[in-house]
Amino acid sequence: MSLLLTGATVIDGVSDQGIDGHAILIDDGRIVAIGRPDELTGTETLDFRGKFVIPGLMNANVHLLINVFFETLVRYEGRYEDLIVEAAQVALKSGMTTVFDTWGPRRALMSARDRIDRGRTPGSRIRCAGNIIGFDGPFSDDFDKRIPGVGSSHFVDRVNATWVENVGRHLMWLTPEAVGEEVRAYLERGVDFVKYASNEHGAAAAGAFLQFSERTQRIIVEEAHRGGLTAQSHTSTVEGLRMAIEAGCDLVQHCNMTGPTEIPRETLELLAGKNCGAVVFPLTDNGFKILKESVSDHEWTMWQASDANARNLVDSGASILLANDGGIFAPEVRSEPMIKGTWNGLPEDEALGRLATGHFVWLKAMEEKGMSPMALLHAATRNIAEAYQVDDDLGTLEAGKIADLVVLDEDPLQSAKNYQSIHAVIKDGAVVDLDALPEQPLLTADLPPSPVEAARYRKAVHHGARLPGCPSCLNGNH
Amino acid sequence: MSLLLTGATVIDGVSDQGIDGHAILIDDGRIVAIGRPDELTGTETLDFRGKFVIPGLMNANVHLLINVFFETLVRYEGRYEDLIVEAAQVALKSGMTTVFDTWGPRRALMSARDRIDRGRTPGSRIRCAGNIIGFDGPFSDDFDKRIPGVGSSHFVDRVNATWVENVGRHLMWLTPEAVGEEVRAYLERGVDFVKYASNEHGAAAAGAFLQFSERTQRIIVEEAHRGGLTAQSHTSTVEGLRMAIEAGCDLVQHCNMTGPTEIPRETLELLAGKNCGAVVFPLTDNGFKILKESVSDHEWTMWQASDANARNLVDSGASILLANDGGIFAPEVRSEPMIKGTWNGLPEDEALGRLATGHFVWLKAMEEKGMSPMALLHAATRNIAEAYQVDDDLGTLEAGKIADLVVLDEDPLQSAKNYQSIHAVIKDGAVVDLDALPEQPLLTADLPPSPVEAARYRKAVHHGARLPGCPSCLNGNH
Amino acid sequence: MSLLLTGATVIDGVSDQGIDGHAILIDDGRIVAIGRPDELTGTETLDFRGKFVIPGLMNANVHLLINVFFETLVRYEGRYEDLIVEAAQVALKSGMTTVFDTWGPRRALMSARDRIDRGRTPGSRIRCAGNIIGFDGPFSDDFDKRIPGVGSSHFVDRVNATWVENVGRHLMWLTPEAVGEEVRAYLERGVDFVKYASNEHGAAAAGAFLQFSERTQRIIVEEAHRGGLTAQSHTSTVEGLRMAIEAGCDLVQHCNMTGPTEIPRETLELLAGKNCGAVVFPLTDNGFKILKESVSDHEWTMWQASDANARNLVDSGASILLANDGGIFAPEVRSEPMIKGTWNGLPEDEALGRLATGHFVWLKAMEEKGMSPMALLHAATRNIAEAYQVDDDLGTLEAGKIADLVVLDEDPLQSAKNYQSIHAVIKDGAVVDLDALPEQPLLTADLPPSPVEAARYRKAVHHGARLPGCPSCLNGNH
Amino acid sequence: MSLLLTGATVIDGVSDQGIDGHAILIDDGRIVAIGRPDELTGTETLDFRGKFVIPGLMNANVHLLINVFFETLVRYEGRYEDLIVEAAQVALKSGMTTVFDTWGPRRALMSARDRIDRGRTPGSRIRCAGNIIGFDGPFSDDFDKRIPGVGSSHFVDRVNATWVENVGRHLMWLTPEAVGEEVRAYLERGVDFVKYASNEHGAAAAGAFLQFSERTQRIIVEEAHRGGLTAQSHTSTVEGLRMAIEAGCDLVQHCNMTGPTEIPRETLELLAGKNCGAVVFPLTDNGFKILKESVSDHEWTMWQASDANARNLVDSGASILLANDGGIFAPEVRSEPMIKGTWNGLPEDEALGRLATGHFVWLKAMEEKGMSPMALLHAATRNIAEAYQVDDDLGTLEAGKIADLVVLDEDPLQSAKNYQSIHAVIKDGAVVDLDALPEQPLLTADLPPSPVEAARYRKAVHHGARLPGCPSCLNGNH
Repeated sequence: MSLLLTGATVIDGVSDQGIDGHAILIDDGRIVAIGRPDELTGTETLDFRGKFVIPGLMNANVHLLINVFFETLVRYEGRYEDLIVEAAQVALKSGMTTVFDTWGPRRALMSARDRIDRGRTPGSRIRCAGNIIGFDGPFSDDFDKRIPGVGSSHFVDRVNATWVENVGRHLMWLTPEAVGEEVRAYLERGVDFVKYASNEHGAAAAGAFLQFSERTQRIIVEEAHRGGLTAQSHTSTVEGLRMAIEAGCDLVQHCNMTGPTEIPRETLELLAGKNCGAVVFPLTDNGFKILKESVSDHEWTMWQASDANARNLVDSGASILLANDGGIFAPEVRSEPMIKGTWNGLPEDEALGRLATGHFVWLKAMEEKGMSPMALLHAATRNIAEAYQVDDDLGTLEAGKIADLVVLDEDPLQSAKNYQSIHAVIKDGAVVDLDALPEQPLLTADLPPSPVEAARYRKAVHHGARLPGCPSCLNGNH
Repeated sequence: MSLLLTGATVIDGVSDQGIDGHAILIDDGRIVAIGRPDELTGTETLDFRGKFVIPGLMNANVHLLINVFFETLVRYEGRYEDLIVEAAQVALKSGMTTVFDTWGPRRALMSARDRIDRGRTPGSRIRCAGNIIGFDGPFSDDFDKRIPGVGSSHFVDRVNATWVENVGRHLMWLTPEAVGEEVRAYLERGVDFVKYASNEHGAAAAGAFLQFSERTQRIIVEEAHRGGLTAQSHTSTVEGLRMAIEAGCDLVQHCNMTGPTEIPRETLELLAGKNCGAVVFPLTDNGFKILKESVSDHEWTMWQASDANARNLVDSGASILLANDGGIFAPEVRSEPMIKGTWNGLPEDEALGRLATGHFVWLKAMEEKGMSPMALLHAATRNIAEAYQVDDDLGTLEAGKIADLVVLDEDPLQSAKNYQSIHAVIKDGAVVDLDALPEQPLLTADLPPSPVEAARYRKAVHHGARLPGCPSCLNGNH
Repeated sequence: MSLLLTGATVIDGVSDQGIDGHAILIDDGRIVAIGRPDELTGTETLDFRGKFVIPGLMNANVHLLINVFFETLVRYEGRYEDLIVEAAQVALKSGMTTVFDTWGPRRALMSARDRIDRGRTPGSRIRCAGNIIGFDGPFSDDFDKRIPGVGSSHFVDRVNATWVENVGRHLMWLTPEAVGEEVRAYLERGVDFVKYASNEHGAAAAGAFLQFSERTQRIIVEEAHRGGLTAQSHTSTVEGLRMAIEAGCDLVQHCNMTGPTEIPRETLELLAGKNCGAVVFPLTDNGFKILKESVSDHEWTMWQASDANARNLVDSGASILLANDGGIFAPEVRSEPMIKGTWNGLPEDEALGRLATGHFVWLKAMEEKGMSPMALLHAATRNIAEAYQVDDDLGTLEAGKIADLVVLDEDPLQSAKNYQSIHAVIKDGAVVDLDALPEQPLLTADLPPSPVEAARYRKAVHHGARLPGCPSCLNGNH
Repeated sequence: MSLLLTGATVIDGVSDQGIDGHAILIDDGRIVAIGRPDELTGTETLDFRGKFVIPGLMNANVHLLINVFFETLVRYEGRYEDLIVEAAQVALKSGMTTVFDTWGPRRALMSARDRIDRGRTPGSRIRCAGNIIGFDGPFSDDFDKRIPGVGSSHFVDRVNATWVENVGRHLMWLTPEAVGEEVRAYLERGVDFVKYASNEHGAAAAGAFLQFSERTQRIIVEEAHRGGLTAQSHTSTVEGLRMAIEAGCDLVQHCNMTGPTEIPRETLELLAGKNCGAVVFPLTDNGFKILKESVSDHEWTMWQASDANARNLVDSGASILLANDGGIFAPEVRSEPMIKGTWNGLPEDEALGRLATGHFVWLKAMEEKGMSPMALLHAATRNIAEAYQVDDDLGTLEAGKIADLVVLDEDPLQSAKNYQSIHAVIKDGAVVDLDALPEQPLLTADLPPSPVEAARYRKAVHHGARLPGCPSCLNGNH
């Protein structure tokens, strides 16, 4: 049974502009042909007159299980795969037919990936890295160091082991060659690409420390390439970025985040010259303004540099990739004070990191920074496919490629905001029932109602310790 | 259908000694008669030749949900009642036909109580106080102050509200009369007795602060009595103890725990003179020795005073009650370092606080301190029934009382350790199927096996922060 | 050599109003007579025409060494007496001829007191309590609990011992009678009055816990009275206040600070009926407004209650005393963030707690709350002398009393702000050289200049840990 | 005036063995000749018959102000130079005529250095690096992160600036070239050599993170060499060590400390091949045993690797340097719990890090590991002079060199412990009055006596919070 899409303007990601009225013939999950409708015939026809068809959107950096809060990981222990599937369905509903998960629990991710690949559940196509090589687990100094001591050792170790396996912080103690061996062992477990830490994650010195030397980084990248996989790096300083590019990474994550220092011209040229994919994490102009109010002067230097970097990267000719660390935070987490002052605390229209909407924010932000309409489309599709070396199958609408595409009501080449006008999503050649997603809301479900007892628990006076103590002393804060 | 128990030595808790060969006739859940077997007839006969029948054991202070660790309360949210039922079944299996829960989540406790009372599930008879009046919830300065900030506000508040309702710390800000009104409102929700804090719980000054004044304490006790309920107090200093007795409490909890100071003679006499039930928390001689090795000198002063108090209380003629804060700690919690140096960290034979075995430890410890065999039995049965004013129904084997009894293989009047030789438990006139308990192991279940990933998470080198840093500096500890 | 003051309006604190033109004859440190100038002769005459003479101001609650920060106590170890003398000189310069120090290091305070009493150094007359009975030292859970572990044990213990001696927290473990013995031993060391804690200091439950029972409080007060000393209490709840009054205190500190609950009418009547001095800590209307912006809703409930209490106390007829916990914070401490949100963080015109100016704020605030001009003067002089039972010598301008007086340029009965127009201060019959005070500025000295190196220590980028880490995570805050 | 030393066995550090009976002629601070006593004449003669003369001992790594505890830095603010002079005098008294201070407050160190060089005060010759390039100050995440927030911002910033100036953590944000510029600016302030961080100091990941990339390290070394100075590195992993050697360092500090991993053979060969000085921090056999009892298994892996490294370094042919991070801890600090479990907590005979005795421990430890007597002497003298490129003047006893020498009672070539038998120290040709050192004991002074008040501060019961709270709960630890 074949499917013929007719009537739409086809923006195939190859041509310089959309082509009105071309039809797309799909069979067995792939695009068979694109051409004049009178030359093509399908057993079923969908009339998309007035619509705009684009390649399925991609996201070069999501975390389908980003909500690694102690409470959440306890509550859903044994169901992490369900959380990941929920997220993959949210992603698909938002037009992303393929997402690259760059940090998460390997086994649950691979299991969800395989369920989706085999058609057993709907969801965005997942490709995953498992752990970021060099990082310790969610309940460690790299992430939330408060948990050991609060949670039971059994659980804390279990969770950390689930994320880290053999490629955690201990690699820093080893020789480059010994690191290479551990990476090889990890790859054999079936991850789709390799991500390693050039800089530390940020809890120690805001990301300024280096996790691995140039030599170790080269060996990690070589191992990935030897295994037929792409390699990428987590960087957060200008030197960490330069090292990752020199090491031969296929792409670098959030490369505009370089602390208070702007990326020097030489590094920009190196990035473009080596055709290394450049993931950018931008702020919108409005988000930039809002954030300024809530962050310290020190932090602000970083946001300013990140913005200058984003603009310079656009000008540099590097291959820009859309990505946003997209994930789902449970509603009780979203309202916590710790969210404030991060860009996840921005209003939804400006918040980059949300899985369902952040890619739209990305497109708006980069449009503001001067990327052309077609460059935006490439950043969200073709460039990602190329950087991840899946462009034989994905990234553009061409005969022979997998039939992943999004149908929009409004023209995305007119305004980036039109990417939000999703009319239909077709993945692997089949129309997705968007209304049914996510099938089982967990983190996207509403908060449970307050218990009857809560009304009687009068917070105002219970939390006595928040009152000032001795009225003329300074000790109330202790 | 009536039941006739024959052949056993009956230790009824009334006579000075056991009576050989008397039969006990039970009908409709109550004891109909105790007498010569040839004078009694039942539709069913149980031959307990060579056994020893005693009144069902009681425990004047348990916490059926004592494992209020953040991780546990997240994992079992919505199932606290199941945890309580599990504990009530463990208690019953251990010979305790009635337990008094003196701190826990009121609604879940009452619901479990009612399920058991109505015969819908087996379990020890529960009578419960709900919150200790004056204490804040599990995730507060009174218990675990690390959790607010780690758990989501929604969950933290939900749990605290579930425990506290309207009778928490804020009462300290009120006048005695206003406290009385709040207590009255709480009683109307259906608790079985009242427990309030004379001293603070211990996180602030090891229990030395006073929570309520003499006047407030009197008003709380009066409210309880006006509502037909008994009143008791949590005390931890000699003055806090004296105040509770003067206020008219029917019993006082762990009254031998008075910090580094021994209870003065006047207070001992007051306790005995007012017939106030004296709950003692004793250490065995062996436990005392073990503990000495692991605690500081400061702590040791308290254990020494508690031991001297226990002995003096026995001599004082006060009505001694068996109790132990008995509860079930999940296996992952029992192995945590925080358990060490507490008496829950003692070996099972000496650990007072365990629900399944702690009452046996109590009996052994108090036997060592010179209580007579019959005084031990009374402490575990009749004295508790009298202090809680349920002695019309419980506490001894007498015609008309509820048929709660334990059948032992060995004579408890020979040695306190014989209480462990439980042959059968009969509650409400029915033989309990001990092997079936607990029906659904939750906290008593085994730990889950290690995940496959754990083998690869090499702890020895991951947790780098535990290594000394600069080798000649002192900074390794920071 | 006698001194005759002529020409001023004399507001003697006894008459209902000022008397124009009366002269005051002083000899040997005391007032010999007050009367018509033509009837009096002195060897020296001071012409205060157009001025206003009032009794020397008093302050019922200062802490001449309130700056008990670790850094300060290290820096000035061995010189605490010098800090106290500096503060006594600041107080004198501000018109306070007598101050009652209600918490501080006993030996240094007594030594400074004696130096001043013997005329060896100028300064406000000091009367002191030493430790607040029941409180632990500056580096303890009662004050700054962060210091043990940061400072060396030797120093931490030394400081705590210097403040606490034998009357600290451990008294809570004792029987009332044993507390009485310890208090008696403490009084023998020479303090001038007794202050004890009815409520805890505030670090545990914002002041809601009770430190001592009614019985213990009565015994402490009895010990003070038996020793010929007055007794007072630190209270912070309505019940703690009631207990202190019932125990027989001569005065109660900051009695309007009762957490979120207003003082009930019965307690107000008790206070007035027992003629117990009522120290009030008021906010000005403007300070009240400013503070509202910076404190939480929970804290605000307390400030509102404290304000209502202040007004109700004025109406109650109780003897109101001026006091403010007055002390000197070093300039580096005043600019610390922990000051914000306390009333010490208010602008100088509204900040109650500053030694040099806070009493003027007090007078302004209570004038706003409706106290009459003469009532204000009494609160600052006569009422304090009476409550402390030094009214034979101090508090009014009467023949036979010590010649402590303040000469103002403007009429204090016209406006409370005129108390600031200090023209001269006479203490013990001698004119004070105000310009020379403080003789040796320590805490009132300027900050040292920045070292040369500071310019090169670029804070903006050094403190990397303040930058957000992983840009899309929430971990920046950990 | 010239000085002739006669009668001793001269161990000049050049010959393979000591030469009996040679005389040493010294004039104007330098050695004029060494030869047969009948051929040499001095205006003054010192008869050292039966003694052993060796070159003045050197130490390649001391911290003359290592006691950077908050309390100490407050107490001695403005007198850091005095503390440094005291330490230099302790060093001299212990036979060290030259010490290399590799981390400390630059200005105070240079000032002490100059005072000693100009003969204004006795003391070991100081050569200093100032800050370790890349590290933040004493009150920062690199050292003691608890202090910001406890100390006033003014003081905390002042201290950090004094240590760090422009070469702190912020360099990690910069490009290699920009780091080079900052280093150049720092060198212009007059330090004697350059030390930078290859690995982080250890508070973040026990030293596993890298502070600077290979490229940055090369540029730092080049800047040092361009300025005519030697360069060295702080390393703590095998990769950090390799990078430092490759970068061209003249010596590497504590190169046997590489976490849990032993230095690979290739790196050992690189070290020897490049003639890079190898500072070793050894444990004695006995110290090793003692430490095993007090450290965790994780830490133990590091000590084991460090010991294997020390032995392998001896075998590798690398130039071994004596050093020990030698410094003086104040007595109140030495007795703090944080010292335990560090090698500073070992008994004096085994504790490497003490300034007065640690070099003797070093010699004993390395003798145990098989270094020959002459190799030990070289490690303590000539090797250090060569690595620091001061061998034209120092390190051996040769005509023309500075007359720094130590006279021993016992033969150091017989046993390493004989280095402790110091008979006399001659520095710059003059006999040092050892008994007079240190001239002004500060950190080496005794603790002040307990105040009178201390006897009354009964610790056992004051620190109530150390007592268990609710006796059957786990909350005592919170």
